Amino acid sequence: MDRVKGFSKFSKMDKLKWVCSQLPKEKASAFYELRHYWHEDAKVQQRFDEFSENTISNFTFPYSVAPNFLINGKNYCVPMVIEESSVVAAASKAANFWSTRGGFKAQVLGEIKSGQVHFFSEKPFSFLKEEFSSKISEIKKAISVFDSNMIARGGGVQEIALIDKTSELENYFQIDLKFKTCNAMGANYINTILEEVANFLRVHWPFAQVNMAILSNYTPDCLVEASVSCPIDSLGENAQEFVLNFKRAIDISHVDKTRAVTHNKGIFNGVDAVILATGNDFRAVEACGHAYAAREGKYKGLSQLSLENNHFRFSLTLPLSVGTVGGLTNLHPLAKASLDVLGNPSASELMMIAASVGLAQNFAAINSLVTTGIQKGHMKMHLLNILSGLEASRSEIEQAKSYFSDKTVSYTAVRNFLASMRISQ
Amino acid sequence: MDRVKGFSKFSKMDKLKWVCSQLPKEKASAFYELRHYWHEDAKVQQRFDEFSENTISNFTFPYSVAPNFLINGKNYCVPMVIEESSVVAAASKAANFWSTRGGFKAQVLGEIKSGQVHFFSEKPFSFLKEEFSSKISEIKKAISVFDSNMIARGGGVQEIALIDKTSELENYFQIDLKFKTCNAMGANYINTILEEVANFLRVHWPFAQVNMAILSNYTPDCLVEASVSCPIDSLGENAQEFVLNFKRAIDISHVDKTRAVTHNKGIFNGVDAVILATGNDFRAVEACGHAYAAREGKYKGLSQLSLENNHFRFSLTLPLSVGTVGGLTNLHPLAKASLDVLGNPSASELMMIAASVGLAQNFAAINSLVTTGIQKGHMKMHLLNILSGLEASRSEIEQAKSYFSDKTVSYTAVRNFLASMRISQ
Repeated sequence: MDRVKGFSKFSKMDKLKWVCSQLPKEKASAFYELRHYWHEDAKVQQRFDEFSENTISNFTFPYSVAPNFLINGKNYCVPMVIEESSVVAAASKAANFWSTRGGFKAQVLGEIKSGQVHFFSEKPFSFLKEEFSSKISEIKKAISVFDSNMIARGGGVQEIALIDKTSELENYFQIDLKFKTCNAMGANYINTILEEVANFLRVHWPFAQVNMAILSNYTPDCLVEASVSCPIDSLGENAQEFVLNFKRAIDISHVDKTRAVTHNKGIFNGVDAVILATGNDFRAVEACGHAYAAREGKYKGLSQLSLENNHFRFSLTLPLSVGTVGGLTNLHPLAKASLDVLGNPSASELMMIAASVGLAQNFAAINSLVTTGIQKGHMKMHLLNILSGLEASRSEIEQAKSYFSDKTVSYTAVRNFLASMRISQ
Repeated sequence: MDRVKGFSKFSKMDKLKWVCSQLPKEKASAFYELRHYWHEDAKVQQRFDEFSENTISNFTFPYSVAPNFLINGKNYCVPMVIEESSVVAAASKAANFWSTRGGFKAQVLGEIKSGQVHFFSEKPFSFLKEEFSSKISEIKKAISVFDSNMIARGGGVQEIALIDKTSELENYFQIDLKFKTCNAMGANYINTILEEVANFLRVHWPFAQVNMAILSNYTPDCLVEASVSCPIDSLGENAQEFVLNFKRAIDISHVDKTRAVTHNKGIFNGVDAVILATGNDFRAVEACGHAYAAREGKYKGLSQLSLENNHFRFSLTLPLSVGTVGGLTNLHPLAKASLDVLGNPSASELMMIAASVGLAQNFAAINSLVTTGIQKGHMKMHLLNILSGLEASRSEIEQAKSYFSDKTVSYTAVRNFLASMRISQ
């Protein structure tokens, strides 16, 4: 690729043309491919383009639904956006299974988010504390104009505290703010207020050097729990053996990091599919969730199993910062459609839905892993992808499905099967 | 939503119709909205539908490019798929800045992935070790049929080891396999081989109870480093002050978890945009990266700064398991287009590109945070989203842009500005 100057000022069409002009001749059709995904309604397309910068096209992911998610007695059909085979099938299967066993119970354990003004000062904490006390009402006044709207909605700044961090880093302090952001994820709101506090310090505290003012994506107090439970006997035929193996799988995820990471990855397969479908920020959710998994100093699986009184109770507690207003949630036509399909939930309700889907996913994954193995279901789904990549005809697809119904699917095996079929014709 | 039976057997159109039939009357247009995003070429659409299950539509994200990424002396125009304002703008800005200062240097530090057969046994380790030694050649033979293709491409199983985990959990052991997967992410390949090993144990080791066989998404030995460096003097006007504040920001990310999570979240804004654009699995990348950030027992920022010999050297080391063949990479027309735009890189090259974009993103974020604050750039980008949500006309947009060029953008401020304009008309 050549260097290019002033690219961001090009029109979208010129950007696309420039990119494609840089491709080798045999790839020239990329232009039509990328152009093809533009939305035909220019106004809608413009909206997509405004989400980001230097856009040349739209990228598509399959948009699915998992029906029959019974959560707190209410039945949901959950929109899921995910590119990985078998995630939606697994969630749907687990949803169906639990819908006849009382469904998912979920509760929000907290809704507090935080942000910090990080600063350095050579003054002792006692001095700063006094200065902080004497200025706190002025600080509150300075931010009130940006907080009034959120306060009117029932949220707003909850606490402002000065924190001594000098034991961790020389001369390092924080002004720590706690927020309730109602149905918004609240990143812009939080950052705007923090920057006002930072500006206040810059003007009024000559003895402090502000380093940065920024929300924290670590929100351990914005927490949700989802659970399922039933008598062990109701788990089906080999309930005792199943429960033993399930318990072992959970125990492993709590002691072994190589497994814990994949265990939690599976949980986020479900959570993120809901996050993407509703226009929320999956990087924030992932960063927070995995840091939370390591909160005790050792990275662990996030779900818990209890087997007291012959009851199987499987639960997931994780921090989730999401919104159902603001950001893309109402701007992206499909995020909006997802919220409609969910019955226009509050942010708390969406936390409970996403956590339930994460738990369902985890249940389905462990269920497969400790019984038939993950590949049987997964490769059955992925078989179509492999066949598609090998440009199998409709009749070849049908024959392959039947042939592999009781055999191990792998790329090589499918390729060899097709080759032998094609030769024998 | 009602409960529904046999939903997965419905045709796609019937699924969509059923979902929309459940919506309140005033939301009936959702059908046309969701139907609208179907690809007009039925064959292409079928391919998307085969990626997942229960699909009713396609979800779109803006597809952008960041040009002028100079990495190891080669100039890239990097495709990025991300819904968050200002990520692509920030990456492009950082790419331009470093392209005149030697660009990004990147190197792959390892390409080894792993997977485990987790099992339980009451036998002592010494006994299992002997059994393992006596059976290892048979195990290798059992998996060879699934490994031959990968070996032919230069990869394959690298090591098979028995691991004693009884100090962590009673009777718990692993068979741990190390893999090279060449240009594939390799999840299906790894899982298929692990399940063969598990099957072998089930048949030949009556004294072992297999719990599960599954790849690990924790790949600390599949590692890449990206860095930028230049003399401190070349960093612009207030280089000394900038470097002091930049250094403090990095130090904070190493001691304070509230900041570290957001710091790394910013890195993954860049990394994931490349992961999504190339059809890779962002949950795997996120889970591994954040667990790696907590590998020393404390969750820390992933980037490092050194200031030796008046040189500013900023680097990022992170594990990244990606593929440029297999999975969706060649099946999704736009993932394929992304790989074309990148010059059809190997998996190692893609690791270096993604890490460089992550580092660029981190540089841009810290640069903003320690100078103007994040909101100035971000809200300038987000202003268009707010205006779009408030259905501003073209002339209102122009006036708002000019009005807010030197003012703090917030939802309330923009709404009030529009209201006052509309009243005064």
